Amino acid sequence: MASLSNSTNIFWQECPVGKLDRQKLLNQKGCVVWITGLSGSGKSTLACSLSRELHSRGKLAYVLDGDNLRHGLNKDLGFKPEDRTENIRRTGEVAKLFADAGLICVASLISPYRKDRDTCRAMLPDKNFIEVFMNMPLDLCEARDPKGLYRLARAGKIKGFTGIDDPYEPPLNCEIEIQQTNGVCPAPTAMAGQVVSYLQEKGFLEYQ
Amino acid sequence: MASLSNSTNIFWQECPVGKLDRQKLLNQKGCVVWITGLSGSGKSTLACSLSRELHSRGKLAYVLDGDNLRHGLNKDLGFKPEDRTENIRRTGEVAKLFADAGLICVASLISPYRKDRDTCRAMLPDKNFIEVFMNMPLDLCEARDPKGLYRLARAGKIKGFTGIDDPYEPPLNCEIEIQQTNGVCPAPTAMAGQVVSYLQEKGFLEYQ
Repeated sequence: MASLSNSTNIFWQECPVGKLDRQKLLNQKGCVVWITGLSGSGKSTLACSLSRELHSRGKLAYVLDGDNLRHGLNKDLGFKPEDRTENIRRTGEVAKLFADAGLICVASLISPYRKDRDTCRAMLPDKNFIEVFMNMPLDLCEARDPKGLYRLARAGKIKGFTGIDDPYEPPLNCEIEIQQTNGVCPAPTAMAGQVVSYLQEKGFLEYQ
Repeated sequence: MASLSNSTNIFWQECPVGKLDRQKLLNQKGCVVWITGLSGSGKSTLACSLSRELHSRGKLAYVLDGDNLRHGLNKDLGFKPEDRTENIRRTGEVAKLFADAGLICVASLISPYRKDRDTCRAMLPDKNFIEVFMNMPLDLCEARDPKGLYRLARAGKIKGFTGIDDPYEPPLNCEIEIQQTNGVCPAPTAMAGQVVSYLQEKGFLEYQ
């Protein structure tokens, strides 16, 4: 089947093997776990721990790391607001393809602007976009400073750094929030466990 | 592990679950099957047939269709040479991610310029990029004209149409060539079979 796009002579090609078939093969449901938060808030740590936990259960996950994508797909983009928006848009489009392929796609990006995240959410059926907010205080992230970037930003050597001289807009209705308990951060496996429990409860870890 | 990029303060994040682990889970090897050829040469037909054949063997494949991507990831791009190049570059980057995820990624795009295809090849270990050339004569493709585009191009209503007023550069060293035998085109299952045989012979359909 093919249908003509209104404006541009571009057809849509439908393939006989679809998302449901791939989900059955994998015994899981494709979705996007979108991890957002400040630099140093633990996004990559959660992504890795989650990826390990899902793999140990025989589930196929793939991590789209914002920094890694900037070495490839998004290497033409900088950090101006419009570049950040395009960076998120492309990542969302790719995450959507991975979910369509049947994978649990774990996107890990600061993604500071609410409207950009909501654009990605709107690309997918709502329940297939699982927004995870790493709700860690700025002073903790800055104290960790695993990449030394806050120091550079405070010294004025990086401009437009999220949390310092560029805003971070926290989610209003995220599916999962990771935060400290009595001033203590959860361990990586505990954070991953929180997400896995959600996925299990919502039926993403089985085909039907 | 994380390492600092020279120019842009972008780190590389390595995850504990890697390509080999995913390949083992899927019992296959990730790769890119890149189908190139004129409009109407049968690229989508092969992609669909191949996807069906691989699925029936329990293998996880995913089709990246050039037209479909132009509705999403590449919707900001047109058909000027630089836009075509960027279209192919992004598709190559995404195909590389899918191969890294362990999938057999089937990319189906006219991809008329040799240097653009070679750019994608260079993104992957050479043996993991399998170029399939749909070597069908222009007059056959034009007679088929499944989307009515040759007619529009001949009438001057589409400019820069590959094969009419924009060049198609055939591969010089493709891995697989699909062509007519005594003036007869192979059936879709026969074309798919040719690719599956190659994948099997090269060990892509098993983990080790």
